[in-house]
Amino acid sequence: TLKKSVVDGLDFQTRSSKMLHPMAKKLVEVMIGKKSNLCAAVDVTKTSELLGLAEQLGPFVCVIKTHIDILEDFQYERTIKPLLALAQKHNFLLFEDRKFADIGNTVSLQFQKGLYAIATWADLITVHGIPGPSLLKALEKSSERCIGAVMVSEMSCEGNLIDSEYTKKCISLVESTSSTCAMGVVSQSRLSHQSGILQFTPGVNLSTSKDNLSQRYVSPEQAILERGADIIIVGRGLTQSPNVEQTAKDYQSKAWEAYLTRIQS
Amino acid sequence: TLKKSVVDGLDFQTRSSKMLHPMAKKLVEVMIGKKSNLCAAVDVTKTSELLGLAEQLGPFVCVIKTHIDILEDFQYERTIKPLLALAQKHNFLLFEDRKFADIGNTVSLQFQKGLYAIATWADLITVHGIPGPSLLKALEKSSERCIGAVMVSEMSCEGNLIDSEYTKKCISLVESTSSTCAMGVVSQSRLSHQSGILQFTPGVNLSTSKDNLSQRYVSPEQAILERGADIIIVGRGLTQSPNVEQTAKDYQSKAWEAYLTRIQS
Repeated sequence: TLKKSVVDGLDFQTRSSKMLHPMAKKLVEVMIGKKSNLCAAVDVTKTSELLGLAEQLGPFVCVIKTHIDILEDFQYERTIKPLLALAQKHNFLLFEDRKFADIGNTVSLQFQKGLYAIATWADLITVHGIPGPSLLKALEKSSERCIGAVMVSEMSCEGNLIDSEYTKKCISLVESTSSTCAMGVVSQSRLSHQSGILQFTPGVNLSTSKDNLSQRYVSPEQAILERGADIIIVGRGLTQSPNVEQTAKDYQSKAWEAYLTRIQS
Repeated sequence: TLKKSVVDGLDFQTRSSKMLHPMAKKLVEVMIGKKSNLCAAVDVTKTSELLGLAEQLGPFVCVIKTHIDILEDFQYERTIKPLLALAQKHNFLLFEDRKFADIGNTVSLQFQKGLYAIATWADLITVHGIPGPSLLKALEKSSERCIGAVMVSEMSCEGNLIDSEYTKKCISLVESTSSTCAMGVVSQSRLSHQSGILQFTPGVNLSTSKDNLSQRYVSPEQAILERGADIIIVGRGLTQSPNVEQTAKDYQSKAWEAYLTRIQS
């Protein structure tokens, strides 16, 4: 059997009833509806590229993950407005990978203020656990839209400083705030055995095993069957494909099949 | 005696010869020239406020620390250009507190690209150690201006997840890249005993001991004499003062006196 955790054997419908965070429930609804547990990481530097890829990838993904701060021509009206329209058209969620990692007061400002005004449009955002509970408290206080925080509890790059003790503390922060703030984790393995917590696993690619800045890759099947991923995050494997739509379709079906295999095995 | 480390007894002139990073040498030159080991953290959301405070604080500080991403009206031409002019006029360095915390490829984009184009104007930037060496490698590759990275090796907010093992790994990353990338640390105590590494200590305030989001404060004397700070970072204690110039002058002289006391004791 492939199951390493009781969570591995449960389908998303069953787990949905254990989800305390409204955004987790919403995401799972999208996933079931579209048969997609694929999140596309669209790391491009032009708005037109972002919107073009979101249009192409939209039908196949449950989430599009952005680094909004690398766009060289960001303008709220011309970037966020059309992105929100595409999210609605294709029924996917927006995940800003900000990796908040500062004290509460600063994160509160970074979240609500500035040109990006992340609090007004993101459905999901990443946070680091490093500053402790004050960060989550600040996000919770600053979010009227009940945005879901996803905590980076393990990293995929070589030589990262996370150890098992740190990871354990992250999971405890997530589990204790899962009704109001943290709805999931970014990790390379199943860490929480609460079935309401969603696991996002990055560093997934069908063809490469490493980039030239020490990022390591696994296949969709490895991520889902061996590592417990609920949602796989695929970046360059999609965005640098010569045929984005076909590749997205491939990743989507491979990832959903792996999920079905896992819950049935 | 107040000395806890051999570094505590050395003056900046002596230490300068041990500094391998050109930006560390430059900063110490400014500090000695202005008799200032005061860094002002200017966390405001309007460009006019940032520039107004930079003008007022400029004569008294060696560094101004920014969170450029909280400005609601950021425009490179109207924000960065005048800020650079003020930095030149008053002879201080610009320190963008970005707390980079992602894999190398992403950090490289966040550093060079986007509206903020941090690589083009910052003298110093903060990084988290959490992603490991790939982050520093990416910054080094992306920086033609030899920007100094300052690693967050301890945090001042309550309940943060940093333990001594993590801190030790940060210091080792800093010390091993101090000629090309990392020139200092953000910490609450003296961690590196290499005299070329500069210590920035935040959470300094003359009057408050805690904010309402779990930030803890110490006085300038405590920071410098008890905790080994080379540069103290003062935020709300300066920016929320009814008399910014007089308060800055106070902090500057208190902090410099404490430094003189430390090296002479």
